[in-house]
Parts: sequence; C-alpha cells; structure tokens
Amino acid sequence: MLICRFADHGRRGYGRVEHDDDGDLVVPVRYDGPSRGWVDDVGGARPMGEVTLLPPAEPSKIACVALNYASHGTATVGAGRRPADPASCAVVLKPPSTVVGHGAAVCHPGADWELRHEAELAVVIGTACKSVPPERAAEVVAGYTCANDLTAYARRAPEEQNGHPPVWAKHFDSFTPLGPWLATDVDPADLRITCRVNDETRQDGSTGGLITPVGEVVAVVSRHMSLVPGDVILTGTPTGSGPLAVGDRVEVSIAGIGTLRNTVGATSDRPWAPDRTGNGGAGLSGFTNRPSGRSV
Amino acid sequence: MLICRFADHGRRGYGRVEHDDDGDLVVPVRYDGPSRGWVDDVGGARPMGEVTLLPPAEPSKIACVALNYASHGTATVGAGRRPADPASCAVVLKPPSTVVGHGAAVCHPGADWELRHEAELAVVIGTACKSVPPERAAEVVAGYTCANDLTAYARRAPEEQNGHPPVWAKHFDSFTPLGPWLATDVDPADLRITCRVNDETRQDGSTGGLITPVGEVVAVVSRHMSLVPGDVILTGTPTGSGPLAVGDRVEVSIAGIGTLRNTVGATSDRPWAPDRTGNGGAGLSGFTNRPSGRSV
Repeated sequence: MLICRFADHGRRGYGRVEHDDDGDLVVPVRYDGPSRGWVDDVGGARPMGEVTLLPPAEPSKIACVALNYASHGTATVGAGRRPADPASCAVVLKPPSTVVGHGAAVCHPGADWELRHEAELAVVIGTACKSVPPERAAEVVAGYTCANDLTAYARRAPEEQNGHPPVWAKHFDSFTPLGPWLATDVDPADLRITCRVNDETRQDGSTGGLITPVGEVVAVVSRHMSLVPGDVILTGTPTGSGPLAVGDRVEVSIAGIGTLRNTVGATSDRPWAPDRTGNGGAGLSGFTNRPSGRSV
Repeated sequence: MLICRFADHGRRGYGRVEHDDDGDLVVPVRYDGPSRGWVDDVGGARPMGEVTLLPPAEPSKIACVALNYASHGTATVGAGRRPADPASCAVVLKPPSTVVGHGAAVCHPGADWELRHEAELAVVIGTACKSVPPERAAEVVAGYTCANDLTAYARRAPEEQNGHPPVWAKHFDSFTPLGPWLATDVDPADLRITCRVNDETRQDGSTGGLITPVGEVVAVVSRHMSLVPGDVILTGTPTGSGPLAVGDRVEVSIAGIGTLRNTVGATSDRPWAPDRTGNGGAGLSGFTNRPSGRSV
C-alpha cells in the first residue's frame, strides 16, 4: 500500500494512493496504531493532481547511518577509517527543520559550501520502541520512502584543512527531502535505488549492498535512542554522491516506492525578522502545555 | 523571573516560581508570545514541594556547540585541532528523546561507555527565527537554564583506535538534563557555572570564558537552521568534564538560575516490547494530521 500525506484546501491528512483509469486518486485514511494500521477516514477520494503532497512523516528525530555501502565508503573515506559495521555503526542526526516533501525546492547553502546529493532508503517508524531486536524490526516500521540526505561540504583553502577533518553539515533547512509517499509492504532487503540529476544517472545501487542491513540499522539506532512514531532513519547512500548546482533537478527513485523529485533553489536572502505572532512552529514544540509522553 | 514547567495531579503547565515565607510557590502562567511574554493562567498557586518539576522546554532540536571554552578545548583536544571560533563554530545535535528534568535519574549506557558530565548554560528559544543577528539574539530567547550535556566515550582497546577519531555519543535517552527552571531576565555574559559530583567541585567556570559568546552562538546556529519555540542551544562546557558512575549525584549550578540535580542510574535492562497502543510519543510527532508550520 502507498500512503501519502497531503494538503487540500487547508486540510492536511494522510491518504491511500489508488490507481484509477483517469489517473491517481488519494483516499483519506488515518493511522490506527501498528496492529490495525491505516483505516479509511472521512472524506471522499481526491485526484492526486489536485492536492499538494507533504513529507510523508513528521519526525521528532532523523538518524543517518554513515558509510553504510562499501563502495561509497571506499570512494570518499580516507585511509585509516572503515565503513560502518554492525557493531559500531556511526549515527549522525538531522533536525526536523530539514524536512521537505516531493516537489519542494531545496535551498543551496551558498558559495561557501558544496552541496551533494545522497540517495537513501528512509525507514519511517510506526510505534514507540527501544532496543528492537533486528529480526523484529518490521514490527515497528510504518513504511519506507525515498530520501535525499543532502549534505554540504565546506569549501576551504587547502592550508586551512591541515590536520582538520573535513567539515560537512547536514542540518541546513530543506536538507531532507522525503517522499513522494510511504510504501508499507515492500521488503527492504534488495531494492534498486538510483539518483538522477537533470536526467543523468549519478547513483545506481541496491539496498542489497547495505553493510548494516535495515533490520540491524533499526536495532542499532533504537539501542541508543527511544524512537517514536514518525521518526526517520536514513540508511546510507550507495556510491556516486556528487555536487548539485542551483537549478538542478534531482530525482531519487526506489523500486516499489516511487520517485522523489526536487529542484535546487538559490540561497534564501530574506532579511531577518523575529516572528512576532509567536506562532512559528506552534504545534511542533515550545510552550504548549500539551500532554507529552517524552519526559517525566 | 523564574519559570518552571510542572506536573500536578495529571495537569501539566508552566508556573512562575515565587518565594514565600512558608517556602517556594508555583503560580500558573502561560506563554503569550515574545511581546507579551508570560501571563497569569487559571489555577491557584501550589507549593513547590507538592508538584513535580518537568524539563522547562520541549525542544524540536537541541544544538550543542563543541569546544567553546578555551580551557576545555586545550585539555581534551589533540594537536592539530583548535577550539571553536565564531566563523566555524562546530555544532552537534541531540534528539528530543534525551531530555529529562531536575531530579530525574539519568541512565548510564553501560560498561562499553565512559559517561562524562558537561555543565553548560542552555539557551531556550522563544520565537521562530532564522539568521538572527548576534546583537538581537536576546529578542528570540525565552530564557536560560542549566544543562548537563552528558556524553559517553566508547571504551575501546588502544589497538582499535589507530587512526580512528574517538567515538563518542550524545544521543542516549536521558542525556540532556535541563532545569530546574527558566530564568528570563539574566544577562548571560558572565555567569558563574559549576558542576559538583557527590559534593566535590569538578567544574568551576564562567560564561565569560565562552570563545563564541551567547549572542554569536544564537547567530551561528540560526544561520544554519530555523529555530522554533522551545528549541535548545547548549553553549559549551568549561574545563573539568569528568567521568560519572552509577549512583553519583551530579549538580549543575548557574548564578541567577539555580541548581539542576540528577542521579546516575543503572543501564535499563527492560526487555524489548513494541508499544501496541500506538500512543507512545503521541503529541510529539507521528501520524497526527495536526497543522504544522514546518513543511510545505
């Protein structure tokens, strides 16, 4: 089943994607927990072309597994380091403010940075969990989607790099395109994953090449951190990550899921102004006094 | 003004801390945006001793500035690296699942890890913002609190460390004690900050020793990431970070704010079980179809 999140005339919700002779439809659904799954919700089906696709998850955290394909690790990592192994899989975090959906523009962070694409299989968590055994990972997964784990590398003069590790950043706004929707029934063991930039294929791999496979990744991440519904794990990128320029069209495709398409926009040069309404981010965090399962 | 977040017979809310001849009181308040600030809410004052203090913020992200006191940087960083400077201040993220409040136990991650305390001034954001000029940082800050930026260093055999950077982790559950409350009126330029472990002083510094001062820290972090109300920035730790053992009592004190006290508990050995209710983390994230200012 393919489950999208969409906006339609001020309403936001989840929908099942159905193929119809006249084009794709979105049938409203809601998530009723891991045992019942997605059930039909109120509201009629809408033509896909008339709704706006939103990112298919609202993570409290995004955990990225570094160097999880041997070929990518070999190509980009210097001597003395090795790709991830199940015992010491390296995890880096991205904030929720990096998430955008299918079709959204991503912001180039500017001339000081080289922006690079990283096509990845994203795991979306469906139930609160901690220390999940690898063989039971599927029980806590709501679905899989395509991700572009955008990363910026600082352009520094060579003399400044002496003895310093390369400086890179994953936390700029818009750096985690996710979509176009969740696939709830795919087996993540061997899915072809590609990245095309302006119709040129830059990455072409398979999740079969993961050093730490998906079940182990969920196990390792959940051993360190409690996961909650909507949390996202980015599983690593196959060889071929490369630079992006303003105006580029980037497509990440995964077999059984679909194609996530984004364009690279210019750096935002909006002047700074505080949000005097106090509403920015409302509903996400802050001083809302809402019930919270997180803290005691 | 000191603003705490508290739980009292199933109600959660914010409260102004008032000193009374008979002991401290908590007067319910709510946050009415950055221009009006904290205003009185319904409900009578409660004795502090009868409520449970919660973490004073619910961040969507926690950004940690690395190596921001010269003395700490010198003591712990090897040759060829230098402490943060305003131009290339290094930022590491912790997930919301690390947050606990005053009085809560923190979990030691186990024998494979050395757990270390890092007393830090925490900045809590009060309004959505991006690219804040350093001289206007105070306009986006809701208040300041004490933080213990707990960090675990992997205990590895020396032969395994050849050529590898030290492996450390900041993302284990309970690794960000915050509290006991927000101080809304302090000037963060020169506050004494100490850490005591079982009554022995381990860290004793001042925020005057920050290489990148608070206003610049808010500027650097908000240049990379949009910030929303409740987001937390940990500003760095002075020299003296040291190991913690199960049973230790850790206190972080900051002048004008107060003392955050936590005890180190054993590693949780709860067996894994999925949360079949699907409620874990509800209200934080996940498939809630709530309005969101975050994504398009």
